[in-house]
Amino acid sequence: MRAEYINPFVASLKNTFRTMLDCDARRVDMRLKQDNRAKYSVSGVVGLSGRAVGTVVLSFSEEVALKAASTLLMTEATEIDADVLDAVGELTNMVAGSAKAQLEELQLMASLPNVITGRDHEVHFPSNVSPICISFETDWGMLSLEVGMAPVPQPVGV
Amino acid sequence: MRAEYINPFVASLKNTFRTMLDCDARRVDMRLKQDNRAKYSVSGVVGLSGRAVGTVVLSFSEEVALKAASTLLMTEATEIDADVLDAVGELTNMVAGSAKAQLEELQLMASLPNVITGRDHEVHFPSNVSPICISFETDWGMLSLEVGMAPVPQPVGV
Repeated sequence: MRAEYINPFVASLKNTFRTMLDCDARRVDMRLKQDNRAKYSVSGVVGLSGRAVGTVVLSFSEEVALKAASTLLMTEATEIDADVLDAVGELTNMVAGSAKAQLEELQLMASLPNVITGRDHEVHFPSNVSPICISFETDWGMLSLEVGMAPVPQPVGV
Repeated sequence: MRAEYINPFVASLKNTFRTMLDCDARRVDMRLKQDNRAKYSVSGVVGLSGRAVGTVVLSFSEEVALKAASTLLMTEATEIDADVLDAVGELTNMVAGSAKAQLEELQLMASLPNVITGRDHEVHFPSNVSPICISFETDWGMLSLEVGMAPVPQPVGV
């Protein structure tokens, strides 16, 4: 995955958290993902396709998911219910949507936001794709953003 | 989700299993998904986007995943390793790819195939999307295919 593709996702996450949640997300780590184990229990997943194909995974602890959803929904969420899952999906969608707008040359479209739950879940990428994992610290706790993308061969003459 | 969109996915799964795995997949059930709990422990997920957005989820028990991967890779897989995960992702990709070719009017593109593991994982769809869940029986065991799609509003005049 080309390094210049990752910065729009980092900027988009920070911007989405600031504008939508009034929450400062500080990047603390960026690395190639070594193992696939989610450190968190709730993951929003959005697929991207166009002149590249990819996936954006935004993972939260239950606590951060509840705080983020409560803020977005302007109500006190105390358990991971359908509203909280929708909020996590929508946040992932916003991060993916704003990043793809900055990667205009890739003409990306986003799929539906799905949300994975389960304390031991892992989201694996194809083994020929090296996703980049970025950790963020917020006042609510940690979260992680993973982005993996691969080029799509273009027909000759296009 | 419009009912006529589901048949290409059913046909595609049966055809992929027959041609790639020499395995007869018999449809035993089709219903709107009521709860989101995966009954299986390995799920391939492919996002679709175009004139509709959607997700295809193909879920296996560990045993069916191992049998399918062993057949596809022509080797004896005994544990869920990277090769097995790639095989599950590739099967999901084939099912999505062949179905989207039959839904030409939607101009769908597929994202990367991701694979979720974890015995208690669930794959949730946005609450305004009603995914359809189709169960298949094979000689290796059961598997499930879930497809959720939503229309994308088109600009006036297109």
